[in-house]
Amino acid sequence: MTLQNLTIAFIGLGRIGSGIAKNVQASGCQLVVYNRTPQKTQPFVAAGAKAASMPREAAASADIVITCLMDDQSVIDVLSGPDGILAGLRRGAIHIGTSTISPHATTRIAALHHQHGSHYVAAPVLGRPDAAAAGRLSTFVAGNREIVERARPVLETYTQKIFGLGEDHSRAASMKLAANFFVVSFLELMGQAFTFADKRGVLEPMTDLLKAFLGPMGEYVDRISNRRYDTPGFTLDAGLKDVRLILEAAGEVQVPLPFASLIRDKCLAAQARGFGQQDWCVFTEISRLEAGQAPR
Amino acid sequence: MTLQNLTIAFIGLGRIGSGIAKNVQASGCQLVVYNRTPQKTQPFVAAGAKAASMPREAAASADIVITCLMDDQSVIDVLSGPDGILAGLRRGAIHIGTSTISPHATTRIAALHHQHGSHYVAAPVLGRPDAAAAGRLSTFVAGNREIVERARPVLETYTQKIFGLGEDHSRAASMKLAANFFVVSFLELMGQAFTFADKRGVLEPMTDLLKAFLGPMGEYVDRISNRRYDTPGFTLDAGLKDVRLILEAAGEVQVPLPFASLIRDKCLAAQARGFGQQDWCVFTEISRLEAGQAPR
Amino acid sequence: MTLQNLTIAFIGLGRIGSGIAKNVQASGCQLVVYNRTPQKTQPFVAAGAKAASMPREAAASADIVITCLMDDQSVIDVLSGPDGILAGLRRGAIHIGTSTISPHATTRIAALHHQHGSHYVAAPVLGRPDAAAAGRLSTFVAGNREIVERARPVLETYTQKIFGLGEDHSRAASMKLAANFFVVSFLELMGQAFTFADKRGVLEPMTDLLKAFLGPMGEYVDRISNRRYDTPGFTLDAGLKDVRLILEAAGEVQVPLPFASLIRDKCLAAQARGFGQQDWCVFTEISRLEAGQAPR
Amino acid sequence: MTLQNLTIAFIGLGRIGSGIAKNVQASGCQLVVYNRTPQKTQPFVAAGAKAASMPREAAASADIVITCLMDDQSVIDVLSGPDGILAGLRRGAIHIGTSTISPHATTRIAALHHQHGSHYVAAPVLGRPDAAAAGRLSTFVAGNREIVERARPVLETYTQKIFGLGEDHSRAASMKLAANFFVVSFLELMGQAFTFADKRGVLEPMTDLLKAFLGPMGEYVDRISNRRYDTPGFTLDAGLKDVRLILEAAGEVQVPLPFASLIRDKCLAAQARGFGQQDWCVFTEISRLEAGQAPR
Repeated sequence: MTLQNLTIAFIGLGRIGSGIAKNVQASGCQLVVYNRTPQKTQPFVAAGAKAASMPREAAASADIVITCLMDDQSVIDVLSGPDGILAGLRRGAIHIGTSTISPHATTRIAALHHQHGSHYVAAPVLGRPDAAAAGRLSTFVAGNREIVERARPVLETYTQKIFGLGEDHSRAASMKLAANFFVVSFLELMGQAFTFADKRGVLEPMTDLLKAFLGPMGEYVDRISNRRYDTPGFTLDAGLKDVRLILEAAGEVQVPLPFASLIRDKCLAAQARGFGQQDWCVFTEISRLEAGQAPR
Repeated sequence: MTLQNLTIAFIGLGRIGSGIAKNVQASGCQLVVYNRTPQKTQPFVAAGAKAASMPREAAASADIVITCLMDDQSVIDVLSGPDGILAGLRRGAIHIGTSTISPHATTRIAALHHQHGSHYVAAPVLGRPDAAAAGRLSTFVAGNREIVERARPVLETYTQKIFGLGEDHSRAASMKLAANFFVVSFLELMGQAFTFADKRGVLEPMTDLLKAFLGPMGEYVDRISNRRYDTPGFTLDAGLKDVRLILEAAGEVQVPLPFASLIRDKCLAAQARGFGQQDWCVFTEISRLEAGQAPR
Repeated sequence: MTLQNLTIAFIGLGRIGSGIAKNVQASGCQLVVYNRTPQKTQPFVAAGAKAASMPREAAASADIVITCLMDDQSVIDVLSGPDGILAGLRRGAIHIGTSTISPHATTRIAALHHQHGSHYVAAPVLGRPDAAAAGRLSTFVAGNREIVERARPVLETYTQKIFGLGEDHSRAASMKLAANFFVVSFLELMGQAFTFADKRGVLEPMTDLLKAFLGPMGEYVDRISNRRYDTPGFTLDAGLKDVRLILEAAGEVQVPLPFASLIRDKCLAAQARGFGQQDWCVFTEISRLEAGQAPR
Repeated sequence: MTLQNLTIAFIGLGRIGSGIAKNVQASGCQLVVYNRTPQKTQPFVAAGAKAASMPREAAASADIVITCLMDDQSVIDVLSGPDGILAGLRRGAIHIGTSTISPHATTRIAALHHQHGSHYVAAPVLGRPDAAAAGRLSTFVAGNREIVERARPVLETYTQKIFGLGEDHSRAASMKLAANFFVVSFLELMGQAFTFADKRGVLEPMTDLLKAFLGPMGEYVDRISNRRYDTPGFTLDAGLKDVRLILEAAGEVQVPLPFASLIRDKCLAAQARGFGQQDWCVFTEISRLEAGQAPR
């Protein structure tokens, strides 16, 4: 399968989606783009893509559809109904879902494709917008082995590391949530640790220590140590959605996650202060405020 | 200062201390050893060290005294009183303290030396027994600049990386506690994340992911993922002491550390189950049990 | 409005519902009953009620419909669709909703009635099955003032104390959730306090003290002090649903409720141990187990 | 034992102590008073008491000594040393300790008296300054049965309800800490519940409901609902001391108390904002601030 011969529909051109789409387009395939607010399609059209006016139309000519959307509901919505992907998609086509959604929504989406005669590849991505633009995301992938192999060259256009999770689609979602739980707890941990270090007079060496130890998370070390939450790669409002998915997925299998519960509370406290559209690690600011440090 | 011409007294030959002492002895200095239970001095005596019968005697001939003890009280006790270090130590000698103790005890110990005419180098170490034996510990060092320089060749015999914290002794203690807080929260995070991953069917890939990401903490990844807490490098009972130091040091500067509070509770729950002498990361087992997994 | 002239439809004859219905029937009205599992209607039919085979049929002849159901979805379901209440209810009739549901579902249900030309009285009840059977529940009531006055004689058949919350229906739901949050936190508090008291040797006097102080919650004091969670008035599985409603309603207005987050985790831990069908205060057992006390 | 024939020494005339002492003096005994800042003794001297210049002097003529002090250390200090109580107290005399101190300090104090040939009655009180002044405190009492009986008439001058805990002195301390844990958790619960109620628009009915339910805690209901923390009966700084005693006493018997851990963090956050000298329930203000409500 050479990418040059493929038609790929891309739906959802947000911060992450536009970065992925740019790399997909650079592979030489024919790209069809759809976005709810159409102006975001312009750079892609300027580079040779076609713009579709609804998901159905985008899917109609596609060998592969990629979605990069907000949450369970938005993926279900874009898939279903008279204007949805399934209304246009041909049998045998493949849908690559890059969004962070729940395991049960993942299973449901895979079933809808199965019914339709098309294929779903669960492929949520880990990484921030700059990693998406640079083609350096990580992808957790699950689905029918042969279908995943067919999708792999596409995944490789924007992914640095692919983690195979087997054939059960929902495992890719579970793994993504486990990874997100790890990352978000890490951020909270930095918030607490830097507050402690700051008030005990060792913020600078603690920042250096963590930078040495946490290469791949260096951007967060800087943001949280310096209390800089502007120019968001991912907003707090979106981050709280992910924390809720984690809590829900853990609750379904009776796993208490006290760190996630605490972080949910910190996110709410940050929203209550009007930080919802800042970078999602802004919830760590609550540790600073609770310790009596002056607001930025 | 060549180490061959120095007499170094080493007090406290526990799991970490014996590793450090071995490296110090290998540097060619004259070693004098003291331990509360004397049989632990035997391998060092066999290799040429002298054994002292009390701290005072060990300190009497020493250019440098190194202590590796349990807690604030044990350092204060070994320093003071008619049989203590200060009763024997000559003016101008240096005491290197490698234990994890509180910032205020550190300040008090430095003051006792100042009064006595000797010098304190606060130098708590980070690392497990195997790192101590291999001379690969990290050391957070604070004290008078010139004295620290004189101590550096000794520190280098057992330390891979030295973090300088300036002249205020207590900053080395604060930094060590900040680092310990980071590590212990990390362990708890792994406990929660692995429990989630296990019950959602993605324990193996999650373990692989963390191993790739967390090189220096790989041993803990294995222990916690596999629920193996025997052959302790550091016991839960000792670990709980450190968590209490963290909470106390944070409380002194009005910093809430909810992760540390939670971990204290987990440590108590682990002690209540009789896990006090297992490896300190055994408190992560509580996450497993709370999620209904069978005891090991 | 004398109750003898009214036809009242009662839908949902569970532990609480059957107690309420018994008191309503005793008032002398004509009762029509519906329950998903029909055998629960028998005692009411034996006492003169009519049994309906679907909600629509129950509602068709009713001046007032009372529902006592599990959650948001079950109330919406019983109201809507071809067999639902609204398909049969005449304009001007009144629906009294006694279930603990979310504020937003409450608002939505009121709107459905408004569209239909009928009236909704939000009237969630506080109390256990024995209080329901004895007509000693508390009710939080909200809705159009005149409609609430018309419903009041019916409420009084099973309610000891009516708290008026004004015309905004959702306020009754918010108030019920606030009260539930208070009660459930109280239970958890007893769990922790009794564990502490027990292990410090003062369980008996602590139990006596709380009994003296907490008259209306004496049953819970006994259950939790004695670790007796059988013969549930309300199950843990149902209780967890309420905790989730509380967290959701608090999250909507950006209020962190760390006690509720903790209790959610305790409920999950209790479910993971298979306690889901015991009395809801069984989540307090987790405090006992965490402190190393032997399982009952 | 008629009180008129007794000489009673009273040490510690703070907010609670002065209320107790007033009631003791009103019983007709001969009162000797000592306080670290002597001006607080004036009203008692004006009413016929003698003022002593040190604890030893106060104790010298006393049949019974009552202490009402801050913490473990202050009780130990006032008891020991050349100017302490024991340096003056005659054999057979009784010491009634009303302070909230740790179980192990209680045991140690009882042992000091035993050695000395005098008697200790552990008698920590529950209640605020107004209850002390009105003679309506509760007392948890433990000690030798006969000695407790001899002390009872004195206790009754300022106590409404006496809870007997048996002969092991430390049980009175444990019981007081269990009761304090209950109360302080209650305050935090109100803070969370009122914040929820306020932001959902039901603060007023929730306040009314709690007032009806919580008669004896009505003052706190008002304070926390109205966010009024001035004119402290008991300061936050003192309250945090009690929370630490609770956590320590629970830790000694391996009982995690997550509510107490959370409240400790709230107290630190309140101290960090400079609230240390306001009424201790001011830590509930943190719930308000975390939910984004404007500072008072």
